[in-house]
Amino acid sequence: MTKVKLTIEYVGTDFCGWQSQQNGVSVQDTVERALGRYFGCDFVRIYAAGRTDVGVHAVGQTAHFVTDKSVNCYKLCLGLNAYLPSTVAVTAAECVGDSFDARFGALSKTYCYRIYVSPMRRPTLDVNHTQVYKPLDVQAMRLAADKLVGTHDFAAFQKSGSNLKGTVRTVNSLDVADNGDGTIYFWVNGNAFLYNQVRLMCGLLVEVGKGRYTLDDVDAMLGGVKLKFRTLPAKGLTLERVFYGEEQL
Amino acid sequence: MTKVKLTIEYVGTDFCGWQSQQNGVSVQDTVERALGRYFGCDFVRIYAAGRTDVGVHAVGQTAHFVTDKSVNCYKLCLGLNAYLPSTVAVTAAECVGDSFDARFGALSKTYCYRIYVSPMRRPTLDVNHTQVYKPLDVQAMRLAADKLVGTHDFAAFQKSGSNLKGTVRTVNSLDVADNGDGTIYFWVNGNAFLYNQVRLMCGLLVEVGKGRYTLDDVDAMLGGVKLKFRTLPAKGLTLERVFYGEEQL
Repeated sequence: MTKVKLTIEYVGTDFCGWQSQQNGVSVQDTVERALGRYFGCDFVRIYAAGRTDVGVHAVGQTAHFVTDKSVNCYKLCLGLNAYLPSTVAVTAAECVGDSFDARFGALSKTYCYRIYVSPMRRPTLDVNHTQVYKPLDVQAMRLAADKLVGTHDFAAFQKSGSNLKGTVRTVNSLDVADNGDGTIYFWVNGNAFLYNQVRLMCGLLVEVGKGRYTLDDVDAMLGGVKLKFRTLPAKGLTLERVFYGEEQL
Repeated sequence: MTKVKLTIEYVGTDFCGWQSQQNGVSVQDTVERALGRYFGCDFVRIYAAGRTDVGVHAVGQTAHFVTDKSVNCYKLCLGLNAYLPSTVAVTAAECVGDSFDARFGALSKTYCYRIYVSPMRRPTLDVNHTQVYKPLDVQAMRLAADKLVGTHDFAAFQKSGSNLKGTVRTVNSLDVADNGDGTIYFWVNGNAFLYNQVRLMCGLLVEVGKGRYTLDDVDAMLGGVKLKFRTLPAKGLTLERVFYGEEQL
C-alpha cells in the first residue's frame, strides 16, 4: 500500500466547492475521477486538508489517497494534469508515511483574501479579488488585525445560523499587505477556522478601514457581539498553503 | 465639442483583439457600442493608442473620442461599466484638449510579459502567464535584456512575413523582475514596437534563460539574423500603460 500526498491548485469559480455535492461539479469529484482514469478504475477516494466553499480558490490545497499500485509521483502529476480541466491541476505529489493524514495532520493553514481599491471595476483582477470602492485606512486595519491574532472565542465570527459550541480558535498571524498598486492582501494563518471565519475577519477589517467600525468594535466582536456587515464574497479567498509537522512527511 | 480620453482594462482571452474584425468580437466594437448606448446612438467611434492582438490583455489601454454632448467623466465611467461585459471596463475618463490624440500623441508604452516557472500547470496563473517548464538563469536574461535596450534595427524581431522597411525602434527599458514566487515578469517600455516585437524579445530572453542561446546570439539577432524559437503566446502579454507628454493633457 502506498499513501500519496497531493498539492492541488484550482480556480474555484465554476466549482460547487471542494466537497462532493448532489448539484454541481466539485473539485473533489474532479480529482477523484482523474485519479480513477489514471489508475484504471472509476475513481480513487481522496481526503483533503479541508473543504473550501463554492467559489473559493486554492494554490496549495492538500489531500491524500491510498493505492495498492506502485506510484511514480512525477508521472502521476503529469498524467493527472492531462486528465484534469484547465481550472484544476496537481502541482506536487509525494509518497508519505502511513501516519500522514491530510486533514488530521494539518498543523495550520494559510489563506489570502485579496481586495482592490477602485471606484471602477478591474477586469484583470476580478477573478480572485473583491472590489472595495473607497480608500481604506491601512494603518487602522493593521491595528485591528493585531487584535484578532491570538487565541480567542470567535463565536461572533461564524456564519449566522451556525451553532457550534467550541468556538475558541487560534489565529497565528494576520498580515495586511498594501501592495502599492491598489491591491491589499490579508494573509491569515491559523490552526483551524470556523465556517466563514476568514471572510468575516477580513470583512471586519475592511469596515475598520472604511471607518465604519473602530478598534473597540473589534474588541466587542471578540467578546461575542455580532456586528452587522456583509460577508466578503468567496472569490477573493484563496487557500494558499497547508502546513504539516516534520514527522508527518 | 468635447474630447475625452478613456483608460480601458480588459481580459483579452475571449476577444479577437482590440481592432474591429469581420469574425469575432473586438474590444473596440464592445466599447464603441457601450458608448453608443450611453449617448443614445448606435456607436461612438474611438481611436486607441494601439491595437492589441487576439488574446492580449490590457490594464491601461487608452483611447479618445469626440462628442458634441456634455460629459461628466465620473458618471460616464460608471455608466459605461454597467453596459460593458465583465471582461472589459473603463477605469478612467478625462476631458482633454483638442490637440490630444491617443495614438499619435503617445510617447511610449509599457508592456508586461508574465511567465511562471513550473513543471506543472498553475491554474490560478494561466489566464495571463505563460508556463515555462524548467528553471531559468535570471542573471543571463538580465544581461540579454540590457543588450536589447536602446535604439536598434529590430528587423529580426518581427513576425515572419512582415516586410516593414523602417525597422529601427527604441526600447527605453526592459527589466526582468524575479518575484520570488515562481513568477518572472518582463517589463518593457518603448516608443513604438514592430508586430510581435515584445513577444519575440521576451521569447529570446527565455531562450537565453534556458541556455539555448547566448549573449552573442542576442547580438547576432540585433544584427538581423533570424534565430529560431517559438513566439511566446499572446495570453502572457499585457499592455500596462501608455505615456503622453504633459502638454497633451
